Amino acid sequence: MTAAKRDAYTPDTLLNVAVRVFNERGYDGTSMEHLSQAAGISKSSIYHHVAGKEELLRRAVSRALDALFAVLEEPGAVRGRAVERIEYVTRRTVEVLMAELPHVTLLLRVRGNTETERWAMERRREFDQRVADLLKAAAADGDLRADVDIRLATRLLFGMVNSLVEWYRPHPGGGQDDDQLAETVVRLAFDGLRTAPQGP
Amino acid sequence: MTAAKRDAYTPDTLLNVAVRVFNERGYDGTSMEHLSQAAGISKSSIYHHVAGKEELLRRAVSRALDALFAVLEEPGAVRGRAVERIEYVTRRTVEVLMAELPHVTLLLRVRGNTETERWAMERRREFDQRVADLLKAAAADGDLRADVDIRLATRLLFGMVNSLVEWYRPHPGGGQDDDQLAETVVRLAFDGLRTAPQGP
Repeated sequence: MTAAKRDAYTPDTLLNVAVRVFNERGYDGTSMEHLSQAAGISKSSIYHHVAGKEELLRRAVSRALDALFAVLEEPGAVRGRAVERIEYVTRRTVEVLMAELPHVTLLLRVRGNTETERWAMERRREFDQRVADLLKAAAADGDLRADVDIRLATRLLFGMVNSLVEWYRPHPGGGQDDDQLAETVVRLAFDGLRTAPQGP
Repeated sequence: MTAAKRDAYTPDTLLNVAVRVFNERGYDGTSMEHLSQAAGISKSSIYHHVAGKEELLRRAVSRALDALFAVLEEPGAVRGRAVERIEYVTRRTVEVLMAELPHVTLLLRVRGNTETERWAMERRREFDQRVADLLKAAAADGDLRADVDIRLATRLLFGMVNSLVEWYRPHPGGGQDDDQLAETVVRLAFDGLRTAPQGP
């Protein structure tokens, strides 16, 4: 089994193992020895693929960040009224979280102790800022409630969306439930849970 | 300074130090030696106050749990339409999170490795269930959107509320901003961010 594993090893397989171990033990708490044991290959075999654990972290969080930033370039995110675009971006962000769950989980947990972690946090802030800008544009169009502070709304929106990494577990084959989840997040955040709006 | 500290030491002071260290290092990663260093008193002095670190954990999470469960007994949580009661409980839960931030942070981070942690998680689930029951009652009254799954809505609501422990930092003296925060959570969750409800 170990021999077969070694033969079949690809950088992607190694990355998947590393992401799992980072999420279980924390990035700081993971040594090359832990990765070697979890992957079932020697440390020197790992060094054949990557320079070290920081490169694995960079690749993993890049995958999450690339997927998130790609959403912002999709037609639904760049055309139409700002409020439609922010709803689109919210829905697609939830979909990215579900599709790239281990990578986004890792991204949301980095603490800033290394250069790669600080870079990842900076990119995350950039993404949050782009979403905040969209919310501001929708507010300027008069499409968002005037009594809600946009910076606070941005944090609460991400708080709700990012909470998925704590409780969402993929269904085999995805499907109906996952579609409903993304739609529910959008409906809750933008239309609220109540059947009818209440006056102040 | 150390002498003065030792004389002035109370179980409450020790509890505050323990909560801070548990939140910084994680409960599993905290030893009695860490607590002794952070508190500036000897381990034997700590054992004079408590049986061990698990007792400190139990006291700390009990404080958070007692404050949360107390909300459910307040008049606003037991009288009136279910939708008004759930809005009240949401607002007060946010206020408890702000008032008891370190204790609730610790409660939300326990992992279930000890009996006390498993007990805390079980109590948290009980609280979540009470809130889910209120949401179900409001849905049965026809006051919540029929197209939103209640179990999912409960998770998203807690996701948004609990995200406060990640980014909320108290203002000296509290005041306006804190009031606005609790109100914004309620408005976002129940009325949504949009100015007017959108048809399907």
